[in-house]
Parts: sequence; C-alpha cells; structure tokens
Amino acid sequence: MTAPLDFESWSCPLPLRDYPSIIMGHGGGGKLSSDLVEHLFLPAFRNEALEELGDASVVAGQAGSIALSTDSFVVRPLFFPGGSIGELAVNGTLNDLAMAGARPRYLTAGFILEEGLPLAQLAAIVDRMAEAARTASVAIVTGDTKVVERGHGDGCYINTAGVGFVPAGVSVGPRRARSGDAVLLSGPIGDHGIAVMSVREGLTFETEIRSDTAALYPLVERMLEQPEMVHVLRDPTRGGVCASLNELAQASGVGIVIEETCIPARAEVEAACDLLGLDPLSVANEGKLLAIVAPGAADEVLTRMRAHPLGREAVRIGKVTAENAGIVAVRTALGALRVLTPPVGELLPRIC
Amino acid sequence: MTAPLDFESWSCPLPLRDYPSIIMGHGGGGKLSSDLVEHLFLPAFRNEALEELGDASVVAGQAGSIALSTDSFVVRPLFFPGGSIGELAVNGTLNDLAMAGARPRYLTAGFILEEGLPLAQLAAIVDRMAEAARTASVAIVTGDTKVVERGHGDGCYINTAGVGFVPAGVSVGPRRARSGDAVLLSGPIGDHGIAVMSVREGLTFETEIRSDTAALYPLVERMLEQPEMVHVLRDPTRGGVCASLNELAQASGVGIVIEETCIPARAEVEAACDLLGLDPLSVANEGKLLAIVAPGAADEVLTRMRAHPLGREAVRIGKVTAENAGIVAVRTALGALRVLTPPVGELLPRIC
Repeated sequence: MTAPLDFESWSCPLPLRDYPSIIMGHGGGGKLSSDLVEHLFLPAFRNEALEELGDASVVAGQAGSIALSTDSFVVRPLFFPGGSIGELAVNGTLNDLAMAGARPRYLTAGFILEEGLPLAQLAAIVDRMAEAARTASVAIVTGDTKVVERGHGDGCYINTAGVGFVPAGVSVGPRRARSGDAVLLSGPIGDHGIAVMSVREGLTFETEIRSDTAALYPLVERMLEQPEMVHVLRDPTRGGVCASLNELAQASGVGIVIEETCIPARAEVEAACDLLGLDPLSVANEGKLLAIVAPGAADEVLTRMRAHPLGREAVRIGKVTAENAGIVAVRTALGALRVLTPPVGELLPRIC
Repeated sequence: MTAPLDFESWSCPLPLRDYPSIIMGHGGGGKLSSDLVEHLFLPAFRNEALEELGDASVVAGQAGSIALSTDSFVVRPLFFPGGSIGELAVNGTLNDLAMAGARPRYLTAGFILEEGLPLAQLAAIVDRMAEAARTASVAIVTGDTKVVERGHGDGCYINTAGVGFVPAGVSVGPRRARSGDAVLLSGPIGDHGIAVMSVREGLTFETEIRSDTAALYPLVERMLEQPEMVHVLRDPTRGGVCASLNELAQASGVGIVIEETCIPARAEVEAACDLLGLDPLSVANEGKLLAIVAPGAADEVLTRMRAHPLGREAVRIGKVTAENAGIVAVRTALGALRVLTPPVGELLPRIC
C-alpha cells in the first residue's frame, strides 16, 4: 500500500494535466477513463480489490446476514461548512448499514460527472471520500464513472452502495418498536440542513454552523453490546426527525409521543430555523441517530451512548404508545399535544 | 408475493395520480417519496427484503468469496430498439458480476430523476427493470430516489450495484491471461451501440438493429462447468472489443492478436458503421462476452457456449502471445498486422 495522494499540495498529475476539466471522453471507457482511474481514483482509494480493476471486485463474504444499502448524493453546493458531497457519499451509505445493526465493510462508488467540472474539484471530493472511508475502516472496492454533457448534470452526482456484516444476535428493524419502548436521540438536530442552507442563502452566524456528517457505526457498536435492548435504529436525514419517526410509527403500527422540551438543538440552528420558517424537527441530519429501546434499557443505552463522542449529548425524547397507531405527537412546553404530520416533500431540496 | 404491476394497462395509481410528473418533493424523503416507493417501486420489485423498508436491507450472505460491482446509466435516449435504460441498468451490473465468475444475487437501485419526468415514463422504466431482474432471478433489495431541478439532469439516471456469490473453484480475472491462451467471443458485435445511435441519428435499416442487452450469467455458468479452463471473462461494453482487449493485454502483461476475418458482425451493423465512420470493434455491446481460455480448452468451451442461446454464434477470434506485451493487433484479411490502439474517449457518448 502506497501513501494516499497528498491533495493539500495536489497538482494534476500527468496525463490528467492535459485536461484540467472533465470532458466527455473521461466517461467513454477508453484511455481518458483509464487515466482518471489510474491517476486519481486508484491512488486515492487504493486497496487490493480495487487494484484488480475487474468489472467487479471479489472480496470475502460472511455466512450470516449481510446488509445492503444505496444512496445517491446530489447536494448543492458540493462543499459546505463541515463537509462536502464526498463525506456525505461515504458516511450516508455507511450509516444506512449501521442502522440495520451492520458493521460496514465495503463500498462501491458511481460518479456522474458533468462536462466542464474542474478536475481539481473532483480531486478534492475524491480526497474527502477517501479520508471518510479510512476513518470508518471501509474499503471502496469498485466504481464507475459516467460523463454527461454540460447542462445535463450538476457538476457531480455520486452514488454509493454499501455492504455490511450483521453480527450474530443483532436484529434491529423499523417494524420492531413496541408499546412502552423509549425513544432516544444521539444529539442536537438540524446542523446539516442549516449548514447547507446557510451557504445557499448567504446566512452568517456568530458561530459557524457545520454539518454533523459522521459515520455512526462506532456509536452503534457500543449500543449493541447487549443487542436485545435495541429494537430500532434510524438516522434522521431527509425530512429530519419528523419524517423518521412517522415512518417508524407507520412501520411498527404504534404511536410515538415526544417531549418538545427534550429535543436538543443548537441556539444558532434554532435562530436560523426561525429566520427561514423551518421546524428543526424536519431539518436533515447526517451524523445523528434515533434509537427505540426496550423500556427498562433506556438508561443503560443512554449511558453507553454518552460514553462515545458521537453520542455525548444523547437524550431520551419520548416513548412508544399502543394508542394512536401510526401517529407521532409532540407534547409542547405547555403540556398540549400536537400531531407531528409527516412532511409532504422536503422543505430544503438537494440537501444530500 | 402479489402479482407484479400490469404496466400494459397501467394507469397511475392514487395518490400518484395527483402528480403525473416528477416534482422536487418526490425526492424529499416525505410523503411524496413514500408514495413513489409504496405505489411504484414496491409493487414492481416486490420481495421480502425490500418490503422491510429499512435504511438497508438484510439478506443472507455467503462464507466464501463475494463479488461487488456498480454502474451508473445515463443512456440517451431512455428507450431504444431492443431495450431501455431499465434493462441496461439491471443487465449491465449483473454482467459485471458474471465477468468475475459470480452468480448474481442482489441488486440495489439508485434513481436520480429530473423534475418534470412523466411518471408514466418512470413506470415503464421500472417495469423493464423488474422484468429483467425476474428473468435473471435476482432481487432488487434496496433503493434510493433523488430529484434534481428541471435542467439539472436528463430525465432519469440510474445507478445499480450488485452482489454476487463466487462458486468455489472459480477464479477468473483480468490479470490471468497467459501466452498461448485462446480468445473467444460469444457472438456478433456492435448491436447495442448501433441500435442507440440509429435512434439518435434517425437512421433506418431494412432489418431493425436491436440492442443485444442480456444477462450473461446463464452462459457463464455453462462455461464454468470446468472452471480451471476459463482464465478471463470480460463484457465489451463502452469502447467495445477494442477497449476490452487492450485493458486485458495491459492487465495481464501479454500481447493479443485477433483475426479480422473471424470477428462476427451483422451486415446492417457493418453498413451503419461504414456510414457513421465507426469501427465495429470499438462499438458497445451489452450482451456479449470475451473469454480467454486455456490453450487446449478452446474447443470444449466453444461447444458449451454454442449450446446456450446467448452463445450460439460464439467463435474463436485470436490468441494471447508473450511478445508485444500490452498491445493488441489485428491480422487483416490480407495477412497484414495492424495495431488496435485503445480508444481515447468514446466514439458514441452516453451509450449506456
């Protein structure tokens, strides 16, 4: 294994230097495509399986259950405070695996590039992906690049698919919430959505709001030390906590009541939401998780969560009820209950 | 398992009917996204793993080697003689697995839809994908949908990633070609590229040229009955036979000589190539494979191939040499040798 590319002082290596921007030929499967693979993707993502350069990569499997997930990323802008499409593309798919209780192992990466994308920008994105993959100890083992004409894309879209191994004894799933279960949240909400929106809207705050993008499996692993305690895991991305809880209430056929005063959000995020007319409960997160756990296990799981940096601010936010199946309600500071209706679309499109 | 959707007489089911075209909200993770999943993707792709609607799908693994592959599809137009982006998205990724000798098992599907795409068109694409997956006996187990604003996409881009199980004893790979090996081709070349190009250029032929899109694993399975005979498999897609053979010559560090008179192509394809100034050897295929096999095994492997409908017209086209490592040469009808240089870009962009 050679050293990863030094992107800090990166200058386009030969022969990429002849084409400082993406041209149609980079997606044609010929020499230009090979140059991109050989001089950019391979040095950045280097691992044995990828180096084979086969149509598919052959890796070790697992006899038990495996988890599969996929996500496409179309976030605008490509770079924002705290992250870029690169970290999202890696962490987002890894988190989907983690929410199935699976230890992420392998990723695939599919790029759809728009003609004219500066190669230096692609290199920066690829560098962020490589760093995120290293941090999470997963290998990007196979990939694909397509190029579309100028005006038919948006710089860079990335799809990743992930394979994870489910440890024996782990069985979490969206249908497993039961009446009496406690609802936990790993930390303050809305950071990712507001970080992206602040760039788009030109908002500035005293303290910069940064995306919370992070790979959550290390936290999940800690929570699953006693796997039977944890029934459901979900990362509240698009549509935020509101969309996630509504999906879980539907999938499990239960009601969910959360306490408004328990929902953590940074003051800057709340201020930005006020300004933009958004409910923090509906704003996207990229490094938080919701957990629904057995009634007696809440304190113990919370303790485990708080012992990990990604769950330091974890709180109990509510509980699962038998009544009002499929409905999520919020108890306000004044004690009134309001129904938290699922969002119709997304308040902030192109957030991931 | 309920019956698949009847797309022949398909009319948009409620509540999709309220939105005859894709709008931004279909990618927002809220109710509109759920409607799309519940009323279109789920009925079309229905299987147990997908029905869980988790962030990831949990399926059975395999203890030995598994193969992973991914491909994004940006073909224009979305529908063409003999196929659509739907069949390509399924068969293309399955074939990448098959070229690693792996039996395809699971697919993921990521859609990037452009605002304004008619829902009926998406339904037709999804129906083609579902049919291709059924034909190949694989399950589409998890997916994702993003929507981009009008003018930022091109109707529909699809990424698929695949997981396949490599049978014990199988070990094919691009680096395994050896001097003396025979080069086999499963049938006539250029059908896919010319089928797509004929629509774009408004060309008509006496006999319609149809894409050869097909899932190749059933043919591969037959060829691998004696796995040690087969060293390399490759489907010559983008860049055609020319790009594939050059990649293999490079990867294995060998020379390859093919006989021009042995390369099969339909008369209509040759005529279209003449008209368009293309070399059939550089035109994309989506249902053909190249095989590099042990010297003494060529006849037996060819017999196996010809016994399968996908390999009925299989031929031996050349051999692997120790000299001229990394170079592919064509022996012309007159006996002269010309170097088959790898394409720089793609003669026909957006072919898959």
